[in-house]
Amino acid sequence: MRLPILIINMKVYPEVLGKRALELAKVAESVSRELGVSIAVAPPVTELRLVAENVEIPVYAQSGDPVEPGARTGHVPLEFIKETGASGVILNHSENRLLLNDLGWLVNRAKSLGLETLVCAPDPFTSAAAAALEPTAVAVEPPELIGTGKAVSRERPDVIVRTVELVKRVNPSIPVITGAGIESFDDVRKAVELGTQGVLVASAIVKAKDWRQKITELANALR
Amino acid sequence: MRLPILIINMKVYPEVLGKRALELAKVAESVSRELGVSIAVAPPVTELRLVAENVEIPVYAQSGDPVEPGARTGHVPLEFIKETGASGVILNHSENRLLLNDLGWLVNRAKSLGLETLVCAPDPFTSAAAAALEPTAVAVEPPELIGTGKAVSRERPDVIVRTVELVKRVNPSIPVITGAGIESFDDVRKAVELGTQGVLVASAIVKAKDWRQKITELANALR
Amino acid sequence: MRLPILIINMKVYPEVLGKRALELAKVAESVSRELGVSIAVAPPVTELRLVAENVEIPVYAQSGDPVEPGARTGHVPLEFIKETGASGVILNHSENRLLLNDLGWLVNRAKSLGLETLVCAPDPFTSAAAAALEPTAVAVEPPELIGTGKAVSRERPDVIVRTVELVKRVNPSIPVITGAGIESFDDVRKAVELGTQGVLVASAIVKAKDWRQKITELANALR
Amino acid sequence: MRLPILIINMKVYPEVLGKRALELAKVAESVSRELGVSIAVAPPVTELRLVAENVEIPVYAQSGDPVEPGARTGHVPLEFIKETGASGVILNHSENRLLLNDLGWLVNRAKSLGLETLVCAPDPFTSAAAAALEPTAVAVEPPELIGTGKAVSRERPDVIVRTVELVKRVNPSIPVITGAGIESFDDVRKAVELGTQGVLVASAIVKAKDWRQKITELANALR
Repeated sequence: MRLPILIINMKVYPEVLGKRALELAKVAESVSRELGVSIAVAPPVTELRLVAENVEIPVYAQSGDPVEPGARTGHVPLEFIKETGASGVILNHSENRLLLNDLGWLVNRAKSLGLETLVCAPDPFTSAAAAALEPTAVAVEPPELIGTGKAVSRERPDVIVRTVELVKRVNPSIPVITGAGIESFDDVRKAVELGTQGVLVASAIVKAKDWRQKITELANALR
Repeated sequence: MRLPILIINMKVYPEVLGKRALELAKVAESVSRELGVSIAVAPPVTELRLVAENVEIPVYAQSGDPVEPGARTGHVPLEFIKETGASGVILNHSENRLLLNDLGWLVNRAKSLGLETLVCAPDPFTSAAAAALEPTAVAVEPPELIGTGKAVSRERPDVIVRTVELVKRVNPSIPVITGAGIESFDDVRKAVELGTQGVLVASAIVKAKDWRQKITELANALR
Repeated sequence: MRLPILIINMKVYPEVLGKRALELAKVAESVSRELGVSIAVAPPVTELRLVAENVEIPVYAQSGDPVEPGARTGHVPLEFIKETGASGVILNHSENRLLLNDLGWLVNRAKSLGLETLVCAPDPFTSAAAAALEPTAVAVEPPELIGTGKAVSRERPDVIVRTVELVKRVNPSIPVITGAGIESFDDVRKAVELGTQGVLVASAIVKAKDWRQKITELANALR
Repeated sequence: MRLPILIINMKVYPEVLGKRALELAKVAESVSRELGVSIAVAPPVTELRLVAENVEIPVYAQSGDPVEPGARTGHVPLEFIKETGASGVILNHSENRLLLNDLGWLVNRAKSLGLETLVCAPDPFTSAAAAALEPTAVAVEPPELIGTGKAVSRERPDVIVRTVELVKRVNPSIPVITGAGIESFDDVRKAVELGTQGVLVASAIVKAKDWRQKITELANALR
């Protein structure tokens, strides 16, 4: 994970239904090249291969299941994610929470497969717990701000500061990413000033009228 | 769903990792054409689009999530399944069980989206419950026989007979499919003789040394 | 289950914390005797034994876990419910939903243990599915009306009528109970007129200023 | 939590069905007094009040639900546990695993209610994560050894040593308890020698022919 980073979680918004996910990824790739800023995208799992095969920026799965390849129906083992060409996986997003034990298993297995892990957590204490598992990075996202347009970096700077502090205490080498409500240049700047090394953004980009403009705005704040 | 049918659940066996899933689907398509027997395939979700775009036999998702498109991370709404070109979805497989209420919601929503539904159930009573939801078909699969090579049609013919009877009582228009342990021509024949209209097969095909030979053997029993 | 019946789900409202649950059960018992109306209570599981040992009206657990006695931590097998003296269990309440397969297992096991089962369902189709499992009774409760004071019998009489119709088609011997939003004499009357044989009530009673008065009002509508 | 401690998880073994749970608790209380060793018991939730009201040693719930008192059916909020007289709660036992986020919420809420928390974890990394949440204590229990009679302290001393090391790094004030397979005086001694401050035991005691003898044997190793 090249830091600082802008990670775009496409979720399963109707705006990225089907091949629109690839279009968004292409825009992100183009802005990343133009500005030299690290940008990653997390498309819907049904489009993971399509996107991973057609862009050169890092592609993340939005989740992964705590199972090995085998007699499992409807699950997504990390091996199948890896095989699409994706380079990492988001784990424990507040919309897709994981059992602590499964999370520990997944972070460990991802490491052995060479997949990066971005573990989300809702508050400073659980972020510290996530850091103890030694993922590639931790993203703190107070769930009550997700999708609101009220940036955590503006509304609850204390949450970010405290998260950075607790994570550093557990393991100073784990970077913290800021999520929830991020939608403007200033929100991203603030997130960086508070000690985090990137942002995780969904609705502000996916639902923007002009994808390129919005991605450029946010990426510029990371230059 | 054209009956009788052979439905191949690829699960996430290592044998179908990545593009091998498409190879298996291609073999199934070829046998289906050759013999004129209805065959459907259910590939891993990461390969759903790849398979659905490249074969003309019916393609089913192995599962679907009870959510609408929107702010959901890592889920698979039925709309995203439909968009890949798949024509149906397997629900409540014993390896991916669903809440009764979610199952009711999914069957109903699939219907409104024009997706077929194959609802699995472990025994006669839950099969009858599944039939009450009015899916396209019900598959009875005693979980203790799944993946064993001990065909339910040989080992527990009473389970199948009783399932057909209870499902018919609830709604005589819902076809019953036989699953669990099916691995030979005779197993399929027996399943049909007991009143079911097809078979759901996984390991016997996926792990066969010769996919074409095994699919041909089982499909021949449905002619 | 003596019909028609008023079933009081105490949930875990602060109003029934600790021994207050027994007080409410005592009031219900007293009204039941006075009016000769069948009333059952479902206290918090921490008070199940206390209540079951001290009242003579039927006592139901609010839920049960799909496990046998053994190496399970924090679960509530049906055997442990039975042992407290409770006579039944509510299953699949919309606040405690169950996997279809587990629900089938639980209804069956409860039967073999001599425990009654009240299976909740959110709509007509899932109610029919629940009926196919042959529980003691089915309670239809549209989740969007629970706790609102907008009685399903007034707001959505069509839901009740359709539920009674579909359940009857599946198994005419399974009684239907009306839940969600019931709070007055008229609501209960209406539920009975629409073909159901009792009501499942929570907040209207638990949060009433005068428990005796409210229980009397609702029970009177079942005379 | 007075350390070192012997914590008896009764699970829901048939041996502690109904009031037998109180009998076992009484024996534990008697041994605790006799030897002056700290012993706590975790009875089935249906007997939690009965036990908590009748013994003076610490009583723990086997689990708790991440909900506040209110419109919840079949759940066990921490407030209801506290009200029975219990003094703590076991969280995230491998037979009752919790979402990381819920675990964080529960540990925090328990603290504010004055309830102790024993958080279980299957391996060193998740134990460290659990410690980051600042519970009263962490119990490391490799799930593959639970109930086997193969004591983790004998079979996998490396797991314990590594857990103590990682937990200490995260927060040196959180004690570690050893669980899984403990069944003899030597197993307990070994657990203490490896740096842990007590043991969590289930089957070895519950299924012993002579409860008093077995509890005495294990408690003696903590003197």
